[in-house]
Amino acid sequence: MITEKIYLYEGRQDVTLTTYVLDDSPEMLNGKKRPGVLICPGGAFVFCSDREAEPVALRFAAMGYHAFVLRYSTFGKGVPGYFPVGEEVEVDPESMHPAPMRDVGRAFLELHKHADDWLLDMSKIAICGFSAGGHTCAMYSVYWNEPLITDFFSEPAEKFKPAASILAYPVTDYHVMIAGALTPEEQAVSDLATFALLGTKTPSEAQLNEVSPVLHVTEHTPPTFLWSTSEDTLVPVENTTHMATALAKAGVPFEVHIFERGVHGLSLANQATATNTLQMVNADAAKWMDLAETWLEKRFGFDLPPTIE
Amino acid sequence: MITEKIYLYEGRQDVTLTTYVLDDSPEMLNGKKRPGVLICPGGAFVFCSDREAEPVALRFAAMGYHAFVLRYSTFGKGVPGYFPVGEEVEVDPESMHPAPMRDVGRAFLELHKHADDWLLDMSKIAICGFSAGGHTCAMYSVYWNEPLITDFFSEPAEKFKPAASILAYPVTDYHVMIAGALTPEEQAVSDLATFALLGTKTPSEAQLNEVSPVLHVTEHTPPTFLWSTSEDTLVPVENTTHMATALAKAGVPFEVHIFERGVHGLSLANQATATNTLQMVNADAAKWMDLAETWLEKRFGFDLPPTIE
Repeated sequence: MITEKIYLYEGRQDVTLTTYVLDDSPEMLNGKKRPGVLICPGGAFVFCSDREAEPVALRFAAMGYHAFVLRYSTFGKGVPGYFPVGEEVEVDPESMHPAPMRDVGRAFLELHKHADDWLLDMSKIAICGFSAGGHTCAMYSVYWNEPLITDFFSEPAEKFKPAASILAYPVTDYHVMIAGALTPEEQAVSDLATFALLGTKTPSEAQLNEVSPVLHVTEHTPPTFLWSTSEDTLVPVENTTHMATALAKAGVPFEVHIFERGVHGLSLANQATATNTLQMVNADAAKWMDLAETWLEKRFGFDLPPTIE
Repeated sequence: MITEKIYLYEGRQDVTLTTYVLDDSPEMLNGKKRPGVLICPGGAFVFCSDREAEPVALRFAAMGYHAFVLRYSTFGKGVPGYFPVGEEVEVDPESMHPAPMRDVGRAFLELHKHADDWLLDMSKIAICGFSAGGHTCAMYSVYWNEPLITDFFSEPAEKFKPAASILAYPVTDYHVMIAGALTPEEQAVSDLATFALLGTKTPSEAQLNEVSPVLHVTEHTPPTFLWSTSEDTLVPVENTTHMATALAKAGVPFEVHIFERGVHGLSLANQATATNTLQMVNADAAKWMDLAETWLEKRFGFDLPPTIE
């Protein structure tokens, strides 16, 4: 396995691609390229949570896919523990839209660069994001072939094409996020996230529209797997239902699993991603990863012949 | 993740310990030590199969455990593709019993050396072996506190104590292996394995007894998880049933899953460990790893408090 941290921009320490590239073997794929999964952790656009990074990558790697963790641009610039909720903070253009989703595009270019060395099949790259990282992936899913990405990098759209999108309790509809349905504590977290992404706690209608993937789904949006919990109080479940509705309208293949019980931020919902609390262990919701495995295998399944010679 | 290949003996390239050591994070275990799983691939004592190495390690790592692949002493000395079935070969004392199980002991000493750096809980090390590697682990399970290990290394038994043993289609009863129930092709493979381990294709009764773990199970044998398929023609399923009987008699906690259908050597039984054939993909047998996860978690589950402060 090649585990390597690649800095995506010269002079910046905060935006990195960590590789979990599987060893090839004559006993297994023997030189054939493998699909890959690019993971964007959550963290309210302020940080990239370790809970939604390496453990998730390992689970996808165990399916036989190369895995990559993208630590994208955030307000906290990778400083551990920085989370200035309720504090006076200054606008940071570097963390603002469209930076996070552009970092995904930058990561795709990096994957292309190493595809032959790593035996990575660039036609089968899934993106998988959690919470704010789910927003980043949902945004990328609808903007990957738009000038915000392609003109910025001066590269053709096909270089950026994701084959599938896996969204875990994602933010997809900013109108839902600013509707004021949250508790004061959660609203403060949500406000900080909005400020990190948009440079204001009171975004304009145009801003809200631009960063609401639900409004931009087209037939170019990749097949999408969505999951969340109906009880999520930080990112209301309408973010899932609205996205599902938009995918349905656009005729994009998709699968949705909304578990009844469970808090926001479950990650794998097992002990591997639990913090210091059992609230993050949830046997029902933990089934999402097996469901995602089955769904992904329909697209990324290895082309194995039926019998031995 | 720390992925590193450690050579366990000076001047030898063939016996290695490959690490899959998880990153610590203040968001997760925050300095607490984790359990580990030490994996011994199969390969008829002639090689260590890649199919039963990294993909298995990643699956255990995804549970939150540090994982390690031990490439133990084999007849092929790590030369890729070497498998001289039916050929005239010379005895290699380096690959013979007790070398493989002693390598497990050597690996335990190496783990001790790094336990603080890696945050590895040495009281919770499971061994997990496949086929010939299953024999190696079954042997270690019954000999870890015996002079063959402890006197050889001049170290106290507690340094070598495995907390659990996971055996996948293992060889546990050499009397079954030489009973002649195999097809000629399979008997030739089995003969090569016997020659590699014992330096003869016609071992004595005493030799057979010594390398049959079923005859040496005691209350010091660790809790054991066994799985295999009833159709396995290379390592007959009696190797599983006899071991289960021996564990039952000794009062050792154990769990057994014998799937009806399936060939020998399935490893994870999914595409991640398939060769160039779908015969190695088996949805029924693939359930073994989830069953092992549940079983292991009863022993290795993280000590998480019930609620957030």
